[in-house]
This record gives sequence, structure tokens and C-alpha cells, in this order.
Amino acid sequence: VTFSSCGMKMSSRSGLRSIMDDIAATTAASADKWLNLSIGNPALIPEVEEMWREALHAELGDGFARSGCRYGPSRGAEPLVQAVVEYFRHRYGWALRSENIVIGPGSQMLCFAAGALFAGPSGSRHRPILIPTMPDYTGYQGMCMHRDGVAGVAPIIERSAGRGFRYRCDLDRVAEHGDAGMLLMSSPSNPAGRCASAEEMATLATIAADRGVPLVVDHAYGQPFPRIVDTPAPPLWHPNVINCFTISKAGLPGERLAFAIGEPEYIDAIVSFIANTALHASQIPQLAMANVLSSGRLDEVCENAIRPHYAAKRHFAETLLAEFLPAHLDWRLHASSGGMFCWIWVDDSSFDGAELYRAVKERHVFIVPGEHFFVPGHGFDEHAGQCFRISLSADEDSITAGVERVGLTLGEMHRAR
Amino acid sequence: VTFSSCGMKMSSRSGLRSIMDDIAATTAASADKWLNLSIGNPALIPEVEEMWREALHAELGDGFARSGCRYGPSRGAEPLVQAVVEYFRHRYGWALRSENIVIGPGSQMLCFAAGALFAGPSGSRHRPILIPTMPDYTGYQGMCMHRDGVAGVAPIIERSAGRGFRYRCDLDRVAEHGDAGMLLMSSPSNPAGRCASAEEMATLATIAADRGVPLVVDHAYGQPFPRIVDTPAPPLWHPNVINCFTISKAGLPGERLAFAIGEPEYIDAIVSFIANTALHASQIPQLAMANVLSSGRLDEVCENAIRPHYAAKRHFAETLLAEFLPAHLDWRLHASSGGMFCWIWVDDSSFDGAELYRAVKERHVFIVPGEHFFVPGHGFDEHAGQCFRISLSADEDSITAGVERVGLTLGEMHRAR
Repeated sequence: VTFSSCGMKMSSRSGLRSIMDDIAATTAASADKWLNLSIGNPALIPEVEEMWREALHAELGDGFARSGCRYGPSRGAEPLVQAVVEYFRHRYGWALRSENIVIGPGSQMLCFAAGALFAGPSGSRHRPILIPTMPDYTGYQGMCMHRDGVAGVAPIIERSAGRGFRYRCDLDRVAEHGDAGMLLMSSPSNPAGRCASAEEMATLATIAADRGVPLVVDHAYGQPFPRIVDTPAPPLWHPNVINCFTISKAGLPGERLAFAIGEPEYIDAIVSFIANTALHASQIPQLAMANVLSSGRLDEVCENAIRPHYAAKRHFAETLLAEFLPAHLDWRLHASSGGMFCWIWVDDSSFDGAELYRAVKERHVFIVPGEHFFVPGHGFDEHAGQCFRISLSADEDSITAGVERVGLTLGEMHRAR
Repeated sequence: VTFSSCGMKMSSRSGLRSIMDDIAATTAASADKWLNLSIGNPALIPEVEEMWREALHAELGDGFARSGCRYGPSRGAEPLVQAVVEYFRHRYGWALRSENIVIGPGSQMLCFAAGALFAGPSGSRHRPILIPTMPDYTGYQGMCMHRDGVAGVAPIIERSAGRGFRYRCDLDRVAEHGDAGMLLMSSPSNPAGRCASAEEMATLATIAADRGVPLVVDHAYGQPFPRIVDTPAPPLWHPNVINCFTISKAGLPGERLAFAIGEPEYIDAIVSFIANTALHASQIPQLAMANVLSSGRLDEVCENAIRPHYAAKRHFAETLLAEFLPAHLDWRLHASSGGMFCWIWVDDSSFDGAELYRAVKERHVFIVPGEHFFVPGHGFDEHAGQCFRISLSADEDSITAGVERVGLTLGEMHRAR
């Protein structure tokens, strides 16, 4: 097969995808024997499942002939676009019109569209997508259609008392990147649960505005839903910011639905991109979402079921880590209020996350090594190799047994050195 | 906004999209007053609607927590992949494995992925997508991320007795195009309902094989479903052919679901592309489709409801055209057995399809002018401007009144010259 330049990049398998394929293949035969702490799926919470089931069911009534049985507009189904307008007006006082909104088949697709539209080759220049604070969602590296199309800025590491640490955005270094076509970040971030502060976000927006490029902010874990992580500030309304929201982590990842809000000149381009590629997001999930958004049910479920679930899980996991991870090892947990993941840094130059992946696999546990969340070659590979991610989506028994085995393995690895 | 090169192309509005926006905006206020014969939606057929409603409803039961509430594999949900393997084995004797199959969020997205992977810039070369027989689906032009990235070959026109004509593929001219990265066609075609013969398809596959490139064939209207157009031959199994199938015209366009079958080296690349962009198609429609495919219900509904519906509509429209279109005008209808559209050619150098669009709009009727189905600048623009498309999705009263007004308008336009 002869690939195009784009094809060379897009047909390649990222390191993380190879790992995920390894996990899928290994666990397929005997899922019960494995403790999978690599899972990116949201936890199954009965109230959440029931909300979506009912909302989807309601769309299979009389309206079905006008939704599932018809093509929809590429901007999004009108009832959902209007529901988003109203919701953000009511919740944050944003004065939106339909022109500010585009619905898409998942936020990954929306971010991919933005990256293709605003970054990449432009005449003789090549303008990369810039990730202002590594580590960040590993999928951002895969969605760029050109080699070396994604650049990342290493964070400033702040150790706190005890076992804590946090990443701070190195705003000066971000400001030095004059050639970026787009800034792209998740906040709260996957994997670390890091939230940009209001000041940091404002500075990033100013940097974007100075360069005349968009700052795309992916709120997959934050405000206003699903609130898996508590955020210190609401999303920022700014002419250069494109805010992306999704219901994947609010319980419906399988149906691929997300939306972006921004200035019409950005949003119109994304609508055209969607029209030319995916045509539009699935209609029935769009109408179901319009319903739970307008009725207040999504907010209720986030407040009463999703947020407490993850807060409790996080608290539970913190206790487990303190109990089972070797006390003599300098391991640290990234600060986060809630979250789907624990992001752990072993501050020891001989530690290797990829080695941990292989070693805990011997004990029938899967974790995700940290290196894949960093764009390689940005002078931060050593720290990247010292981190790993544990998912909190599994049940408490699995997390307990898994963390215990991770602790045992870390102790063994340490002694072997 | 500063766009990338790709962004310049992908943010632009095609001529046809401008027309569709015009139609949507015009009819939004008072849909009842308009006779819309531009519609690309499939007809609403009660048996079809009921099949999908029931199949989707069945997926909101116990399995919902493992489908809608979870991310799915980028190749497609396992039950659907297996159902496709079995269906094509049984129906055509194809010896498929999972590796031959990728499910995607619509065939437009699958064709877009293939175009990005196999055509476009590659080092210093630029290999266009080649459309072997114009006219063809207008969306193919929008899915290419580079200017002049799509080339088309003008057809050979064969007039038949009476009011008929048909396009034949100019295979010699196709063979001369040495630089194409991919061949892309719909068969049966939108807009003309043209089906490639078995010999023609075999020759195109050989041309693709000689060049080491894929031939992507979009069966949206044909075999094995929805059978809106009767096809002379089954899909061709060949190492260089990627066959695309969708349920959009089988009644569920709103939920965006399609699949492609081909050699693993092509299919794997498309799976990676989907993984990097849309992640996967919506899960519930995938499982619903697996169900109706395996149970035989989709075949039944195609045979007993979809095929007869369009055959009758086509017959009805042919009678109307003969009655209402001016007898003194040399208009011709492209041969098709069934189909969602009538493709009409006015063989008169003074006729202009864009002018007809404006003139019938004055009479509150929408048709689609033909030029948009041809890649411009390939020495065929005169014929392109002499064609127009009428959709058969509307009800019989609307089609009758619409065709009558088109006939009146054509008569007036002719007299005015």
C-alpha cells in the first residue's frame, strides 16, 4: 500500500494504542482473571445509566421518523443547539446564538477538525498544534495528520508536603512558541486531573489572541458536566477560545456526542469540516441530550450521582495508595479533586513506567505507563517515564486488589536495583 | 482566522451546500408552501421505520450498560463485525475475517478516511482521487483536503430510442490517468442511478491493481441492501477493491452507520484513521444493525418494502415526466431500474440547469441543478449545465405538482429563447 503523507501518519499505531490492543487481546479470553486499572470508560452508575436509557427511549416515539430516519443539519439538531444556547445563557450568562455552536460526533472529532483547519501546513509554513502543559490527553498526538505536527511544553513541577505534587503551566515558554496554529488542552486534564486556574486560562487566551490563533479547551471531565473533577473556575468566554464539552464522561461514551462553543468564524469552519466528513452526529443521542439538558436532569444526576461517586472513589484510592505503595519509595500523587484517574510519579531516576507495565502484567494487573501522555523529545522524557496512571472506573474490590499488587511490584522493582 | 492549507479547502462551502442552505432557509418558515424535489433523504416507509425502531429499542435493555455506556472498538462492535462476516459469507460466499471489516460513522467518513490515507500529497507528488465516471456523488469533491485533489473522467453518452440515455465509463481515459492515488465511485450512482456492469467493474479493478491503488466502491443504493436500484451484478471481491455499504438509504441516515470491506492492509489503515478521529461509530445503531442483518429482517424489508416502493415511484415519475415535460424539448431521462432520483438531461445548448433552479424556485419548487455532480474543468461543463436532478422521496402529490411546474417552467424558458 502506498500511503499519502497524511496516510503515513494516520495509519500508524500510537504506542498507547499498541498497549490498549495488548490489554484488549489479553483480557478477551479470560476477563475475570485480570484486574484492569487501565480503563478509560466512565464508571457504571445506575442513576446515570437510567437517565440515558429513558432519554434515548423517549426518542423512539412519534418523533423517530423525523430524527433517526432523516439526515440532520451539520451544525447539529436544532433542539440541541437551542438547548445549549439556553443552558449556557442560564448557567454562565453567555449570550450565545446558534452561530456559536457546533455539535459533533465526539470531542475527539471536534478537536481533530480544529487541528486540521487551524494548524498544519500553510503555504511554506508549518504551524504545529501546541499543548501548553504536558502531560495531556494522549489522543491529541494521534489526531494530527503530519509528522511533528504536535508540540508540547514541559510543565513546572511543584512538590507539596507529604506525597503530593502538581504541574503548573510554564506560561513564559508557551509565550515563546510563536509558530503554533492552535493551542489545545484538556482542563481538568486527562491523565493528571490538573485544572487550569482562571488566571492561567486568561493568560493562555491572551497568548492565543496575540498570535491570532484559537485556544481549544476540552472540558470532558469538568464544568458544567460531568463534574468528575471539581474545577476552580467556569469555562472562559473569550473570542479566541473554543470550548469543547462532551457527554462521554457523563455516561454515554458509546454514542459519540460532543459540542463546541466559540466565535462564529471558528465554529462555521468546523461545521463545514463536519459537513464534508462525518455529515453530522447521530440524531437520537442529540435529541436525548437536548432533553436532559433542558429538563435539568443532567445537572441533577451530576450533582447527586456522578460527582459524589468519583469524590468517594478518589478518597478511597488515596487511602489505598498510602497503605499499599512502598513507604520508602518517593512516589507522589498529582493533586486533583475527584477525577477518573490517579496520576502517580515515582521520583527516582531508576524507575521506568514501561517496566512497571510489564511487571504488573505478570501479576494480572494493567496500568498505563506515563510516557504516552507527553509529546516525546521536548526535554521531559525522564519525568514522563517515571509516571503511571491508574483508573478509578473499576469496582472497589478490583481497585483494592490491583493497587495492592502494584505496591508489591514497585517494592520488588526497587529491591532489584 | 488564519487557516491551514487544508483549512482553506475544508472550511469552504461547496456550491451544492450553498443551494442546500438556500433551500433549508427558504422552506424553514413555511415548509407547506414548497414542493421540495431536492431531498436526499430516503422515503419514509412504515415497515422500514418500524424495523429500526424495534431494533434500536431492543438495545436499550440489559445490554445498554455494555454498549451506549462504554467506548467501543474502532474496528466496530464485535457483534456487528461478526454479523457482516456471516452475512457476506452466506450471501456471496466471501471468506471474510474481522480483519477485512471496518465499521464507521457513515460511508462519507469512510470514503474521507480512504481519500486522506491513499490520495493527496506524498513527498513531492500529489496523487488525486479519481472519479472514473462523472457525474457522481457531489460529496466526494468536498471530502478532499487539498485544492484540485479530485479529478473526474467525462463519460461516454449513449442516447437510446425515445427519451432515454445512459453514461458509459470511458475506460481508456481512466487508464490514462497514471497519477491517481485512489479511484472512488458510487454504483448505483447518485445522481444518475447508473450501475457499473460486471465487466466495467472488473476493468476498473484491474486498472487500480496495475497502479497499486484502491478502488473504493460505494454501494449506498445497491446490493445487498437497500436495493433502491436493481443492480446487474453483485459487489466485486478483488484485492484492490474496498466495498462500502451503508444503512442510510435503508432507512436510518440520522444515526450515521456504514462499513467497508477489503484487504486487511487497506482496512487496518482505515481503522487507525477512525481511532484517531471519530474513535468509533455509535454503538447502539451498530448492535441494532447486527440484529436485523443476522435475523434476515433487513433482507425481508428490502425485498418487500424498499425495493417495491422505489420501483413504483420510479414508474410513477416516468409517466409524469412524459406527461408534463414539453414534448418539443429534447429532454432525456438516464436509464435506471428504480432509484431515489430522476436524472434529466436537456440536450439543448441554450439550456442552463442553474437558471431552471432559479425559475422553478419562483414557482415554489426546488430541484438540484446538475453541475455540482461533475468535477469542474474536465471538458464536460456544457453537458453538466444541461442536467438536473429530481428526488422521488416526496409523496406522490408533491411529485406530481412539482413535475408539472417544472414542465411549465421548461416550456417558458424554451419560448423565451
